[in-house]
Order: sequence, then C-alpha cells, then structure tokens
Amino acid sequence: MTKKSFPLSKVYGLLEPGPVVLVMTARDGNPNIMTMSWHTMIEFEPPLVGCVISNRNYSFGLLKATKECVINIPTLEIAEKVVGCGNTSGAIIDKFKKFGLTPKSASQVRAPLIEECYANLECRVVDTKMVAKYCFFILEVVKAWIDPTVKNPRTIHHLGSDSFMVAGKKIKLKSKMK
Amino acid sequence: MTKKSFPLSKVYGLLEPGPVVLVMTARDGNPNIMTMSWHTMIEFEPPLVGCVISNRNYSFGLLKATKECVINIPTLEIAEKVVGCGNTSGAIIDKFKKFGLTPKSASQVRAPLIEECYANLECRVVDTKMVAKYCFFILEVVKAWIDPTVKNPRTIHHLGSDSFMVAGKKIKLKSKMK
Repeated sequence: MTKKSFPLSKVYGLLEPGPVVLVMTARDGNPNIMTMSWHTMIEFEPPLVGCVISNRNYSFGLLKATKECVINIPTLEIAEKVVGCGNTSGAIIDKFKKFGLTPKSASQVRAPLIEECYANLECRVVDTKMVAKYCFFILEVVKAWIDPTVKNPRTIHHLGSDSFMVAGKKIKLKSKMK
Repeated sequence: MTKKSFPLSKVYGLLEPGPVVLVMTARDGNPNIMTMSWHTMIEFEPPLVGCVISNRNYSFGLLKATKECVINIPTLEIAEKVVGCGNTSGAIIDKFKKFGLTPKSASQVRAPLIEECYANLECRVVDTKMVAKYCFFILEVVKAWIDPTVKNPRTIHHLGSDSFMVAGKKIKLKSKMK
C-alpha cells in the first residue's frame, strides 16, 4: 500500500463523519496504540482536532510527555484488531506484535503511522488547557496521508459497548456547507 | 410519534458514532435551528458534550445568552431539511416554517425539541472557557428522549461539502469498551 500526501485543507472530511480511530504515541522508540471515538474537528485550516484521552490510559502520559501523536483511521477490514487494541493496555503488551499491525515512520513526528489504516494524520499537541479538567487535548494536524485506492472507506463508528455501525452508502445533498 | 425518556447513562452511544445533528436554541420564544457536525462526548455521566458553534452563526449569540439548547438527531428521512437548515440563516427566516419541522416543548430547557428527529437531548452550557478562542462550548445533557420504534437509525454523517455517508449495518465485536 503506497500512501499519498493529503491536503490539510481536506482533513476535516475524514474526521467529521465520526469514525473510530487508532491514536499512536511513542516514547524512546516504544510505540503505543489506543482506540478512540471521542474526537471532533475544532478548525478547518490549519486543521485542529479536539479529543478526550482518559488519564486511565497508558497513552495519556505518553501524549502529555511527547506532545505528538498520529491519528490513524481504520476500516472494517481490521475491525477486530481495532477492538483488540481497545481491550488491552500498552503498559503490558506490544500491540503491534499482538495484532499484526505494521508501524511506518512518520515525516513530522516521532510516533509511527499504522500502515493498515487507510488514512494517517500526524499531529502535535497545541493546547493543553482542558487536559486537567476533561483530559481534552487540542491537536494540530501537521501532515496527512491517504491510500488513494480507497474510494469508499468502510469506517467503523462506535454505538456503545460491543455495538458498531459500519459506514454505509455515500449520498450527495445540495449543501452550501464547507 | 411518541418519545420515551432515555437514560442519561446511554446518551454517549447516540453521539459517539458522529451523526450530523440539529441544534435548537431559542430566545423570547423565537427558536432557531443550526446544523452541526463538530461535536464529541467529553464525559459519560453526567453526559458532557463538547461542540463548536461558529460565531458566524446566528445560534452562537443565542447559545451564549440563554445557556440552553437541544441537540436533535435526524435520520435520512429528513436529510434534505437538515441540509436546508445548514444553508440558511435563522437571522433571516423561520426555519421551522420553511422546512416543515415541528417544535415540541422540552422539559428542562426553553428551546424546543424537533419532533421529526428520532432523538432529542436537552442541554445546558456548563463551561465557556474555550468559547472565546475556539467557539467551543461544553454542554451537559440534562434530559434525553428517544423514539423507541427506531431500532437502526439511518443517521447521516458529513464527509465535506455536499457529500454525506448514511449509517450502514450494525455489527457486534467483542469489545470491553464502555
């Protein structure tokens, strides 16, 4: 799979539909993966993303310390690996090995991309004012990658506990919205 | 359509999949509707929701002044009305009349519910610290309603400009996630 550079001005369209994502952090060359659904766009360009990473997660400390991460967007093909990452702690196991995911070097941050995800967003933490109260980080996407062969990504969307919705058909509506 | 009270502890499962929603505000008995996709859960219970409401929108001033709103979750059946609300300004027209939507009294807030939406979340603004910088409001859901006859809501999810994804099939995965 060869990823292509994706315009930062279009990143909002990847996250706005609300997919489950895999957040990569890394310290001292040791990467960790976290499954996350609590994210929102905050600004179009530069793209800002707000997200909740609970302080009960191993990733919380890594993100606070390194101020860098990669948001990877998975599809149905690897849904079981995604849920597996959400069910285990990186404090205990190496999730890349356990779930057969492939790390690839990012261009702007030290955390790696996940090759098996159709889109990868390299991010830097730009605002931590809401971290103490809500574990809410504001990230700036500094580089984006996409698999150009995936036209209708079957992203997965969490409905609570063990239920997920798979992205259905695409429709066009006469919208003036950006 | 008769709505039933919905447990606050389950509200996250309605918003976490990332649907386009209609935000209702009202002042002096004049309601306004805004289409919104930039929202995320912040806490399970009491359910806290973070959302961006641009200060270019008429709703921004209403929400700041009244500190109350209703988040309504529409489905494919009324998708054209939803997009219509996003394409027009409540400063100029009465969206309820123009799009044939029905306001219903809420129980905890003065803004009305939209009857045609399968779920309605009555909200109060609880934190405005990020409003000046990011137009980011934190809301607490104080009362939730659902149409119990809708088992697989075909929510709509914005992919950017005139493209939308319609919620597809529901799947179960062995998740320990809440």
